[in-house]
Amino acid sequence: MALIDVIAAKKFGHELTKDQLTEFASAAANPKTPDYQLAALLMAIRINGMSAKETAALTLAMAETGDLLNPDVGGIPVDKHSTGGVGDTTTLILAPLVAACGGKVVKMSGRGLGHTGGTLDKLESIKGFQIELSEEDFLRIAREVGCCVVGQTGELAPADKRLYALRDVTSTVDSIPLIASSVMSKKLAGGARGIVLDVKLGTGALMKTKEDSLALARAMCDIGRRAGREMAALLTSMDEPLGSHVGNALEVKEAIDTLAGRVKGPLLEVSLALGAQMLLAGGRAQTEEEAIAMLEKALANGSGLNKFKEMITAQGGDARVCDDTSLLPQSSVKTEIISKQEGYITSMKTEQLGLAAQILGAGRLRTEDVIDYAAGYILRKRIGDFVNKGEVIAVLHHEKSAPYEQSAEMLRDALQLSSEPPQKQALIHAKIARDGKETSWH
Amino acid sequence: MALIDVIAAKKFGHELTKDQLTEFASAAANPKTPDYQLAALLMAIRINGMSAKETAALTLAMAETGDLLNPDVGGIPVDKHSTGGVGDTTTLILAPLVAACGGKVVKMSGRGLGHTGGTLDKLESIKGFQIELSEEDFLRIAREVGCCVVGQTGELAPADKRLYALRDVTSTVDSIPLIASSVMSKKLAGGARGIVLDVKLGTGALMKTKEDSLALARAMCDIGRRAGREMAALLTSMDEPLGSHVGNALEVKEAIDTLAGRVKGPLLEVSLALGAQMLLAGGRAQTEEEAIAMLEKALANGSGLNKFKEMITAQGGDARVCDDTSLLPQSSVKTEIISKQEGYITSMKTEQLGLAAQILGAGRLRTEDVIDYAAGYILRKRIGDFVNKGEVIAVLHHEKSAPYEQSAEMLRDALQLSSEPPQKQALIHAKIARDGKETSWH
Repeated sequence: MALIDVIAAKKFGHELTKDQLTEFASAAANPKTPDYQLAALLMAIRINGMSAKETAALTLAMAETGDLLNPDVGGIPVDKHSTGGVGDTTTLILAPLVAACGGKVVKMSGRGLGHTGGTLDKLESIKGFQIELSEEDFLRIAREVGCCVVGQTGELAPADKRLYALRDVTSTVDSIPLIASSVMSKKLAGGARGIVLDVKLGTGALMKTKEDSLALARAMCDIGRRAGREMAALLTSMDEPLGSHVGNALEVKEAIDTLAGRVKGPLLEVSLALGAQMLLAGGRAQTEEEAIAMLEKALANGSGLNKFKEMITAQGGDARVCDDTSLLPQSSVKTEIISKQEGYITSMKTEQLGLAAQILGAGRLRTEDVIDYAAGYILRKRIGDFVNKGEVIAVLHHEKSAPYEQSAEMLRDALQLSSEPPQKQALIHAKIARDGKETSWH
Repeated sequence: MALIDVIAAKKFGHELTKDQLTEFASAAANPKTPDYQLAALLMAIRINGMSAKETAALTLAMAETGDLLNPDVGGIPVDKHSTGGVGDTTTLILAPLVAACGGKVVKMSGRGLGHTGGTLDKLESIKGFQIELSEEDFLRIAREVGCCVVGQTGELAPADKRLYALRDVTSTVDSIPLIASSVMSKKLAGGARGIVLDVKLGTGALMKTKEDSLALARAMCDIGRRAGREMAALLTSMDEPLGSHVGNALEVKEAIDTLAGRVKGPLLEVSLALGAQMLLAGGRAQTEEEAIAMLEKALANGSGLNKFKEMITAQGGDARVCDDTSLLPQSSVKTEIISKQEGYITSMKTEQLGLAAQILGAGRLRTEDVIDYAAGYILRKRIGDFVNKGEVIAVLHHEKSAPYEQSAEMLRDALQLSSEPPQKQALIHAKIARDGKETSWH
């Protein structure tokens, strides 16, 4: 079979066969395949779409272009994937909590790019923490501690690596089947048997509508189920940063404060909801109520924070940060941002809030940019809060040389004020349970 | 403006603006533009289409990426373009006839590729004939003789050159707006003020249905009119080879025999019909009847054949071939093909008939292949003719080393026989006149 025939079939809007999709995945993994043929096929898929069956077959074929891990961790390996947000450090909270409840969390994370943060960067703000481990060490820690968070080990889904880069430059990112197959090819290759998805929705998310987010969540769950995995998904709000801390060391601090029971709120709420689905997928609990109770107990008795210490130590990091967060990188300057107006916060430009942290040094514009782990800000207000003129809305953490005035302006502009309070919005918009049952909240 | 935004606009099915289409054409002509972006945009155009306005704007922008000729030939310069066929040597007949009637034919032709022949290859089978002339010589001969046929002079529509090659390998050839803009960008750049199109239809044509052929003819006429050119088009049958001779020197012989009045038939009929449109477009005649009468007179009094001699001489060729066609290249072997069955010929696989000549050496599979000018065949039968078992259906002209048995088998297989005679088909299916009026025959 020739790739040109696969392109022609999708151009005509035909459903591609398993053989045709395997040819596509193999061609993408083959450096000799010209980019222009892949680009033409990506555009044909973007416009003419793919069925659930096609998407699942492509995803499996992409996974099979590289290593396929089969993690032996003394239990059902579970993983969580977020489509990316701002101030979202759920991984650092739920991984230790789930492990404290007997779960086995095998997590391969990414770095931050654009307006979204990355779990690997956050962990690397802890002195000595190693995110590059051998496969043996990765699985040993997951087995012994119950959780381990690393960068990609081995060569997972090389076809995706090529297609992901091409989609960015050919305007084919916004395709639900292509997003779903990209995420899930790596997740399937990583070998987790239970996969919980956190699909973000709102001004800081790739997907701006509930309809699209739900379609993406369904597509990803469908792929996983066809590959024999336990799947569940939550649609969670990214209409404002999830936590109040944005920036790498700042988010680690917020995770520790949360695990220590000092901080409640949306970040904890979403972490518990996702963690509960992971316990269910990993066979550690039978009902959601039971799972939530287990997680709350691990939070209350400190065993979650202890697991985080164990994981940090096992991965070479300085676990003393869990008892003294001042050991985390600290910025030399802290600048208060004062509101110039008064009113209720009715909405936030969350993507802009992510970029406001990025330009302080918390994130990357290009993959080769160097990060300032201490940089970022603490947001004092959430949607619905009233802000007085002259009140501090946020505190920037930065170095003198950082463009903090620009960041402050972006931050101020990102908060929309009104004399009327906004309607209360849901934090969790919808859930797709393990059995496929969907629940939706408005 | 960035090309990625143009890709996105067409992906969403928007009508592209003149600026966006100019960006596309400039990007295509710029070697720094990556192929994958052009490929993605070509596929988006192939699937989501382009309006007549978009197609015309793109074509003009493509023409403007290179040289724009303005031929001063002492009259209105006219050109003819055929979408390509088998045994179609109309150019060699109509160019001298139109010139003999006072027309000014400026013709840039191409070489044969695949199953279709090329006018340049046919002319080069005449000893000494030069198809590469300076622009000055080209226009001088067109002015003095009234017709000149050359390869491309200058750099015409470089954007098209790149896109044409990319379309072939990205399954985006079958797009009427892209075919129309490709053909017309070169025609507009060539500077003819009157352009007559011969859009082929049938088993040997790119377009297999009348609907598609008519849509292509309309799109090309529309582009030309928007650029201020006189346009006319005929839809002609390519359900069988147009002439009885297929192969380069053989087709030159048939053209000479036709100009000398020794051969009548479909080839002459189509040549006269196209030639009449060229006289109208060039302002040399007021009505079709008048134009046909002028051409028939030039045929009868030998002035057409004389013009062909003048043109051959002016372009360095040996014009004695017009009086003695045995001076044309001759093959060393002639093999008669005998029919193994009897019946009426009801249809022909014309593309296969083109390939049967190509493998004898008459055409190219790759652009670098070398041609045997003498190779080809004479077809003794047309659709509707009765063939007896054992009767000669064709005579192959070839060298001993050519795969003539395979060619004979392809040729025999290409003729479909039946005990019932077929319905008579039209030779000219439709006409789009200068004023846009369409006439259709069944």
